Amino acid sequence: MHPKINGDRLWGSLMTLAEVGATTGGGVCRLALSDEDRLARDLFVRWCREAGCSIRIDAVGNIFARRTGCNNTRPPVMTGSHIDSQPNGGRFDGAYGVMAGLEVLRTLDEADIVTDAPIEVVVWTNEEGTRFAPSMMGSMAFAGLLEVQQVYQITDAQGHTFGAELERTGYRGEGLGGTPIGAYFEAHIEQGPVLEEACKTIGVVIGGQGQCWYDLVLTGQDAHAGSTPMARRRDALVAAAQIIQTVNRIGSSFPPGGCATVGHLSVHPNSRNVIPGCVQLSIEIRHPDDLKRKAMDMAVRAAVREAAATGRIEAALTQVLDQPATPFDARCVAAVREAAASEGHSHMDMISGAAHDAIAIARIAPTAMIFVPCAGGISHNETESATPHDLAAGCQVLMQAMLAASTAVTPGADGFS
Amino acid sequence: MHPKINGDRLWGSLMTLAEVGATTGGGVCRLALSDEDRLARDLFVRWCREAGCSIRIDAVGNIFARRTGCNNTRPPVMTGSHIDSQPNGGRFDGAYGVMAGLEVLRTLDEADIVTDAPIEVVVWTNEEGTRFAPSMMGSMAFAGLLEVQQVYQITDAQGHTFGAELERTGYRGEGLGGTPIGAYFEAHIEQGPVLEEACKTIGVVIGGQGQCWYDLVLTGQDAHAGSTPMARRRDALVAAAQIIQTVNRIGSSFPPGGCATVGHLSVHPNSRNVIPGCVQLSIEIRHPDDLKRKAMDMAVRAAVREAAATGRIEAALTQVLDQPATPFDARCVAAVREAAASEGHSHMDMISGAAHDAIAIARIAPTAMIFVPCAGGISHNETESATPHDLAAGCQVLMQAMLAASTAVTPGADGFS
Repeated sequence: MHPKINGDRLWGSLMTLAEVGATTGGGVCRLALSDEDRLARDLFVRWCREAGCSIRIDAVGNIFARRTGCNNTRPPVMTGSHIDSQPNGGRFDGAYGVMAGLEVLRTLDEADIVTDAPIEVVVWTNEEGTRFAPSMMGSMAFAGLLEVQQVYQITDAQGHTFGAELERTGYRGEGLGGTPIGAYFEAHIEQGPVLEEACKTIGVVIGGQGQCWYDLVLTGQDAHAGSTPMARRRDALVAAAQIIQTVNRIGSSFPPGGCATVGHLSVHPNSRNVIPGCVQLSIEIRHPDDLKRKAMDMAVRAAVREAAATGRIEAALTQVLDQPATPFDARCVAAVREAAASEGHSHMDMISGAAHDAIAIARIAPTAMIFVPCAGGISHNETESATPHDLAAGCQVLMQAMLAASTAVTPGADGFS
Repeated sequence: MHPKINGDRLWGSLMTLAEVGATTGGGVCRLALSDEDRLARDLFVRWCREAGCSIRIDAVGNIFARRTGCNNTRPPVMTGSHIDSQPNGGRFDGAYGVMAGLEVLRTLDEADIVTDAPIEVVVWTNEEGTRFAPSMMGSMAFAGLLEVQQVYQITDAQGHTFGAELERTGYRGEGLGGTPIGAYFEAHIEQGPVLEEACKTIGVVIGGQGQCWYDLVLTGQDAHAGSTPMARRRDALVAAAQIIQTVNRIGSSFPPGGCATVGHLSVHPNSRNVIPGCVQLSIEIRHPDDLKRKAMDMAVRAAVREAAATGRIEAALTQVLDQPATPFDARCVAAVREAAASEGHSHMDMISGAAHDAIAIARIAPTAMIFVPCAGGISHNETESATPHDLAAGCQVLMQAMLAASTAVTPGADGFS
């Protein structure tokens, strides 16, 4: 049994989907639960019904298209991603994982293959979190990490609630999670430059980074830039500069996989001829190894203390996120790696730097991800791009991994047992 | 002839003036040509008329109170400052120089002293530049650095023109500059911490700093903070941090008098988990010695080039101001120094870090300034404060310097010749 997915059909699905909410810059704008998101969801549902699937919608609007197997008491082998986008998003972020799942359904139909466990393709609601925060809302709620009644009350910038928009778009269903998943695979563009740079087609994603987020407020003394001698200054921005440089060095000091970033910074009073009295900034550190992340955390705290002491600055550091690393399931990861090898695709193990629905689902089900390269590592951008060849390769690997999980001969708690 | 100013009366004038536009925080709000500014001007005019002076208003609202001398063909010896304030200004910035001039008039009257050259006390219009930009508007126009018709068209945030507000408040007079000034002295709080730290009562101001202002745009590549390896980044904020630290070191490397500041900085897209792709910032350098300022300028340019090369960042540096240093007149400075010494006040030569009307007037007349300490160097702030002792000392020095200039026996083009 060695079916082949149809790369042209996959590309066609992606391009048709990209017409829904298409932007003039070549990207898409499909904010969660917007009219464009609804049209894209309607299209997905129609295509899956045409492929013979049954459709189920849960209480937060996650859509499950189910293809029955021989043994429908087994938990499903699931794949999917999201079809909402950033305001100036690309055509592949999320959409690829959903269209790859659809292509698997179509290929299995064409080849008359009946899997042992049922197969499900899922569209998770509001992965981007741009219109309604937080991100990964649908998969987080499914995994029991968000309460449905709280989710309903979340509002967008115009004051619309998630619950009302879910109702308006016709995607408020029943139930939420609680049923086991045999295995979950998610195909996605990398959203980073690693595969392209390494000239590899398939990223075998072995897990997600752990993260620490911090808010830092540096308070010195704003004063006249002309009449305050250098030695008398308590310049909060000079202290911030020292911290930014040290944070950057900390990121580079924990290879491979260490990242450290100051992304947000604001200066007060932010006037050309006033020494900055206060600076607020964000720090984030990431590492796939929680012990190394702990060492980075200690280095960040030391850097803040040192800059504060040097500049006679008060520093208030608040940790706002402490998220452990998410190792993926060894058997799911092995299934992806073996599929890539058997298909003859160059591949490498890697860590997911970005957050994905799979990171939430990994809390409750055996999970792995498949990355394919995206041009220049650019994503969340209208110019986001990937090649038909790489997209087809990732889809083929996805199908092979799912078949390995769904046809495992011994039914049990999950697809591989 | 050794008259003594009345420190209590000076303090009383200051406190009475501070009631006009008093804020709840203990400061004043007298924006230029506001009703509060008009009331303060009316008070000044009344006090000067009571002291026997004639009043003249020029085309931009500068007020000249003239006390005749023996030889009224000699150009006047002038003192003054401004009585407009910042929105949350203090009680002494500007007001001190005007009330000190008034106190000199009153003291000379009490002592029945007639100077050889006439004495004038001036209120310059809109020194702060908060409501109508630029700052030092009245003195700059007087010195021929601004055109009166252009000044009239300048609007505030509500769309009121300077000309209409000048008319409304009753301070639109005739003529502008063109008459010689024998010598100009301005007393002012230091607005910096130098005198307080050095435990000196009198700052003998020998000139104003030269300044260079720059705008800098750093362009890298915004990218995902989780999926972009450290070595691949083009982080504009990391480059900015390197520049901020180097600019700070440049300021410290040119003592005495060197200052270098990054006061304004903005980050794009300024999101916690996005590597900053663009940073805009201001740089300013100041030095009383134009050759050293030129060396600082070259060091700044080298720092920008180096940070751009290190971080693979595009840097666009634009110089927006190149203002040479303003050395004050040697004889006026000597008169201040000698007065401080003869009155037995501790004193030191210093540079004005802040801009003042005297910087504009120095272009057209022999000029010096007298600084007195202000608590903590804090100014442009409701908590701005100075001691009655220091204010009286500065006023006494002012009077002695003015007497030296106005009673010089050989009349000529200026007070000392």
